[in-house]
Amino acid sequence: MEPRISLITLGVTDLARSTAFYRDGLGLPTEGDYEGVTFFKLRGTWLSLYPRVALAADAGVPADGEVPAAGGAFPGFALAHNVSSKAAVDATLQQAQSAGARLVKLAQDAEWGGYSGYFADPDGYLWEVAWNPGLDLT
Amino acid sequence: MEPRISLITLGVTDLARSTAFYRDGLGLPTEGDYEGVTFFKLRGTWLSLYPRVALAADAGVPADGEVPAAGGAFPGFALAHNVSSKAAVDATLQQAQSAGARLVKLAQDAEWGGYSGYFADPDGYLWEVAWNPGLDLT
Repeated sequence: MEPRISLITLGVTDLARSTAFYRDGLGLPTEGDYEGVTFFKLRGTWLSLYPRVALAADAGVPADGEVPAAGGAFPGFALAHNVSSKAAVDATLQQAQSAGARLVKLAQDAEWGGYSGYFADPDGYLWEVAWNPGLDLT
Repeated sequence: MEPRISLITLGVTDLARSTAFYRDGLGLPTEGDYEGVTFFKLRGTWLSLYPRVALAADAGVPADGEVPAAGGAFPGFALAHNVSSKAAVDATLQQAQSAGARLVKLAQDAEWGGYSGYFADPDGYLWEVAWNPGLDLT
């Protein structure tokens, strides 16, 4: 694993409201124009906003209540570690499991054209490991 | 506000266990040797681990149950936006409030020698705004 958090995604209840807060209120610069997700291109780690329910669904965990695989409730956000190939996704998830992480979602092809899976750290915080051919965050 | 997340702090239940997971298991590089907190110096945004209860206390919110000022339960983590002066802390908190954020903790001198306060975004996610004369994360 490289020493890098590529992206922090906050699961939000009202994407338009949260986008306005961060973009217009705090002045953070958006990047691109995507349906259903807002990216802020920051120095270092990017921030993204995504509906809370959709984020839970992407990780394959319930949005409310217990997350058996993660050992706690859905924390509402995910850190992302992007890598440069599908093989590196698999290798990183394997490394995390060897380190004691719980595999929450096996890596698979994603609707957005990439490949990703999720693991949970000892407290149930979610990390997505992703290969994204459309957005270089490695 | 500058386009930067300085630090992500995960509130953890067992600092030694989580430090071992990220340092030994995932191979992330630690920075410094501090009592009660672990810093990982990453490219871009740093990661830190801090006891969950202590993180809630630092923000001045209950570790479990509702957080009235934040409009929800303690999310377990905080993003940090570090700035280069006490005046910039005050100004940034003011900007966040003008943008609709809830002020969770008025900026004040901190035990660790800096000055910080907290606001909550529309979903109750916590941001610490900090001036830290001992660690340049601006």
